[in-house]
Amino acid sequence: MTFTNINRNPTLKFKLKDLAAMIECEVVGNGQLVVLGVSSFEGATGQDITFADDSKFLNRLSQTRAGAVIVPWDFIDFDGKTPADSLTCPLVRSKNPRLDFFRIVELFHPIKRSEPGISTRAVIGANFISGKGVTIGSGATLGDNVTLGDNVHIMPGVFVGDDVTIGSNTVIKPNVTIMDKTKIGQGVIIHPGTVIGSDGFGFTPGSGGHEKLVHAGFVQIDDQVEIGACNTIDRGTLGRTWLQRGVKTDNLVHIAHNVIIGENSLIVAQVGIAGSSVLGKNVIVAGKAGVSGHLTIGDNAIVGPGAGVLSDVPPGEVVSGIPHMPHGLWLKVGRIIPRLPDLRKRLLALEKRVNTKENTP
Amino acid sequence: MTFTNINRNPTLKFKLKDLAAMIECEVVGNGQLVVLGVSSFEGATGQDITFADDSKFLNRLSQTRAGAVIVPWDFIDFDGKTPADSLTCPLVRSKNPRLDFFRIVELFHPIKRSEPGISTRAVIGANFISGKGVTIGSGATLGDNVTLGDNVHIMPGVFVGDDVTIGSNTVIKPNVTIMDKTKIGQGVIIHPGTVIGSDGFGFTPGSGGHEKLVHAGFVQIDDQVEIGACNTIDRGTLGRTWLQRGVKTDNLVHIAHNVIIGENSLIVAQVGIAGSSVLGKNVIVAGKAGVSGHLTIGDNAIVGPGAGVLSDVPPGEVVSGIPHMPHGLWLKVGRIIPRLPDLRKRLLALEKRVNTKENTP
Amino acid sequence: MTFTNINRNPTLKFKLKDLAAMIECEVVGNGQLVVLGVSSFEGATGQDITFADDSKFLNRLSQTRAGAVIVPWDFIDFDGKTPADSLTCPLVRSKNPRLDFFRIVELFHPIKRSEPGISTRAVIGANFISGKGVTIGSGATLGDNVTLGDNVHIMPGVFVGDDVTIGSNTVIKPNVTIMDKTKIGQGVIIHPGTVIGSDGFGFTPGSGGHEKLVHAGFVQIDDQVEIGACNTIDRGTLGRTWLQRGVKTDNLVHIAHNVIIGENSLIVAQVGIAGSSVLGKNVIVAGKAGVSGHLTIGDNAIVGPGAGVLSDVPPGEVVSGIPHMPHGLWLKVGRIIPRLPDLRKRLLALEKRVNTKENTP
Repeated sequence: MTFTNINRNPTLKFKLKDLAAMIECEVVGNGQLVVLGVSSFEGATGQDITFADDSKFLNRLSQTRAGAVIVPWDFIDFDGKTPADSLTCPLVRSKNPRLDFFRIVELFHPIKRSEPGISTRAVIGANFISGKGVTIGSGATLGDNVTLGDNVHIMPGVFVGDDVTIGSNTVIKPNVTIMDKTKIGQGVIIHPGTVIGSDGFGFTPGSGGHEKLVHAGFVQIDDQVEIGACNTIDRGTLGRTWLQRGVKTDNLVHIAHNVIIGENSLIVAQVGIAGSSVLGKNVIVAGKAGVSGHLTIGDNAIVGPGAGVLSDVPPGEVVSGIPHMPHGLWLKVGRIIPRLPDLRKRLLALEKRVNTKENTP
Repeated sequence: MTFTNINRNPTLKFKLKDLAAMIECEVVGNGQLVVLGVSSFEGATGQDITFADDSKFLNRLSQTRAGAVIVPWDFIDFDGKTPADSLTCPLVRSKNPRLDFFRIVELFHPIKRSEPGISTRAVIGANFISGKGVTIGSGATLGDNVTLGDNVHIMPGVFVGDDVTIGSNTVIKPNVTIMDKTKIGQGVIIHPGTVIGSDGFGFTPGSGGHEKLVHAGFVQIDDQVEIGACNTIDRGTLGRTWLQRGVKTDNLVHIAHNVIIGENSLIVAQVGIAGSSVLGKNVIVAGKAGVSGHLTIGDNAIVGPGAGVLSDVPPGEVVSGIPHMPHGLWLKVGRIIPRLPDLRKRLLALEKRVNTKENTP
Repeated sequence: MTFTNINRNPTLKFKLKDLAAMIECEVVGNGQLVVLGVSSFEGATGQDITFADDSKFLNRLSQTRAGAVIVPWDFIDFDGKTPADSLTCPLVRSKNPRLDFFRIVELFHPIKRSEPGISTRAVIGANFISGKGVTIGSGATLGDNVTLGDNVHIMPGVFVGDDVTIGSNTVIKPNVTIMDKTKIGQGVIIHPGTVIGSDGFGFTPGSGGHEKLVHAGFVQIDDQVEIGACNTIDRGTLGRTWLQRGVKTDNLVHIAHNVIIGENSLIVAQVGIAGSSVLGKNVIVAGKAGVSGHLTIGDNAIVGPGAGVLSDVPPGEVVSGIPHMPHGLWLKVGRIIPRLPDLRKRLLALEKRVNTKENTP
């Protein structure tokens, strides 16, 4: 299996000094180098640019076959010498090497913008209010009383229900479903296949089995939120389900009715958050974790992968495991679990020895 | 974070006595109160109606700021006094406060019905048989030999394959995919993004790797079933995958080929049920649990959140944990797991003491 | 609950000897039998054919009510006698009974092929290159520079982005989303609702919260891959996410950016594989398991259901549990976990006895 993460764009090349200028960085070495593409550290060859932002890669700089490497600003004085002297390639000093590298990736792979316009194969309901530069793809269907900000891009196959508002520069990818009354902010990205505003799982015993409870609430998604593919975000039973500014969710995430997720929290793939739970700011919930209903997860808390959270988590705590416990404790527990058969054997042997001695006159 | 679950509808208001009459309940106190909206117990203010059906809320009735509260019928004689006397608001006596509250929610937020009709942007195959009052949205595609009952509502972007039958009053939400031969009963709701009738995961070793086995079966969904968003329900390999009357599934649920789910069972979000397992009536499978293939889960059994069910569960049992065990035992186990490092330390210390004594002359 | 997996097709019937000839097998007994349908072993009645390929069913052959049974080639001489003599039905000898049975299923339930052609309700971008016999359904949208091989079938509601290549005989089921630059091989099947080529979950801290990293890579899906319903397969951040020849995924599987899955590996429902992990050939990852990022799973390894894989797995290993451990060890651990309360009690009792003796003069 040979595999390199090289990405070249045959129609583009840049001089290193021009690239550095565009991202406001400084070249140490040959700025005349012609850069043909971007690459991972390991995959880079002669005319690719890559980056190194931790010691794992910085210590191996002399071995890289890259054409140029973006490094942390202070690296040049690292260890009292100028490491660039002993290198085979020029360096680019950056205050944020990862971010600046991906700015260069974007220069090589500019995001295509469709020409604005509304497809003749889209269907638009009554009382449509549209900003400037809006794009609506074929097969999209918008209900009544939809309001779109400037430059909103709705891709093919999207459904938007009645009374929905979508802020400027938001992109709704193909085959997304947005049910009625949803409010979406500016600069939001919603990946394909996601469903926003489906009814929550709310029933109550009645004469004919489970009686459905009307879901009269809505979903509110604030500015700069990004939602992964095939998420399901239920509307509030009453009131709202609310993803606050800067929240990012990965794929196949389930967010139940009336959940609130605080600013800049990260929800990784296949997480489920049950009804009415409230997450604070800057929370991280790692992949496949589950959070029960009606809980509070404090600001800056971290929930480990696959954890099962059954009670509140205080601000700043790091928890893991099923049931959840402090992460450090879980690491110890995780080392003991595979030794349980051995521990059991030792306990039984010890019991036997104590018994023997007691029975020895 | 201030948040209240208030839902008002600016165009609607009701006198309390009229609301009570519509849901066949009895007002204790001022029936002339004008009600402007519905609310959660905590969010309610002056002219909202809310409900209280357990002691948590009933004990705090005197503190509510709600305009009116729906309470259990017998609550008025609760504790030998008429608690209404000491309250700041009128009460509404109900045989089922939660259900009656949501009837009022529906009065304030009536479900919009589209005008019946078939969009000119829908595509319908040969031999189409349609009941009265059917609605088919733009971008929906129906195959050949599709039969719809009265008032079926197929929303935009839905695909319905050949030889599908859908019963009266069933609603198929946007971007649902229903593959050929599926049989759907009356009063069913299928939420957006769900896939019904995909092929099961069936392969057998052959000369060219895994050979695909033809999936000749189908999916049958009985009356009053509700299926959440982004579910995947595979067709039978032979015969059917079957959701019986009144089953409700939450979001992102996976139901494999030839699974049978008995009447009124509840399947919570992100559950997976492997091939050919059979669940009885009134079973509850809580969020993220997994059920292996070819198992039987008896009537009224409950599977706890995140449980891993690897063998049959008898009727009425409550199981939890990985591997699954009786729920009461799992609660004990769950308290011991975080203490394993301590228990191990104590075992080792005890071993040492016994060793020392044995070696003491 | 009565349930039988019978599948008949009222318009088709075959003589047993003709069926056997079509699948190149040999009849032992009455080849003139008229076969009306296919069935599971338990559901079969008079004129159905079924199969038996393990001792569970072979030992009960004399009890079957099937019209005919496909059995392993060597079964006829099993136990030194011709078991067919004592049977109530003819047998069909096969080198691969399961595979041959499903060939007969396909004879009774031939896969319908739509007439080739491009729907007038499909939208096709610029520079479209199409093979022969291509079918594109209503409401499908193809971007610019799309290339399709012969007999590609794109069903209704599918989105295909710019610069996508799809090989011959590949079928894309309804409401699938394929983002730009995806490369799909020949003979691939993608089930409904699946998303290929969404952006990975890649952000880096910036001045305004989490800054999005451009995802310039793509997804490559090799020949004979089958992808289940509602999968999410993210594009590479740089370079590719890669499913190699013959990989099969079940429903609701998440495959993150830059993951590589080796030839003929099987990924069961609701599995999640985090970014940049590399799976070898013939790997099996059972339902609901999770694999962390940047790991290597060797050829022929097996990951058990619900396992949490946090470090590399060597070739050929079978692992289970959370955290993952050798499967045999996990089986022992799984038997001890429910006995933890008992073991704790015994440890405490033993401590007490040792204490008592030490305090006894």
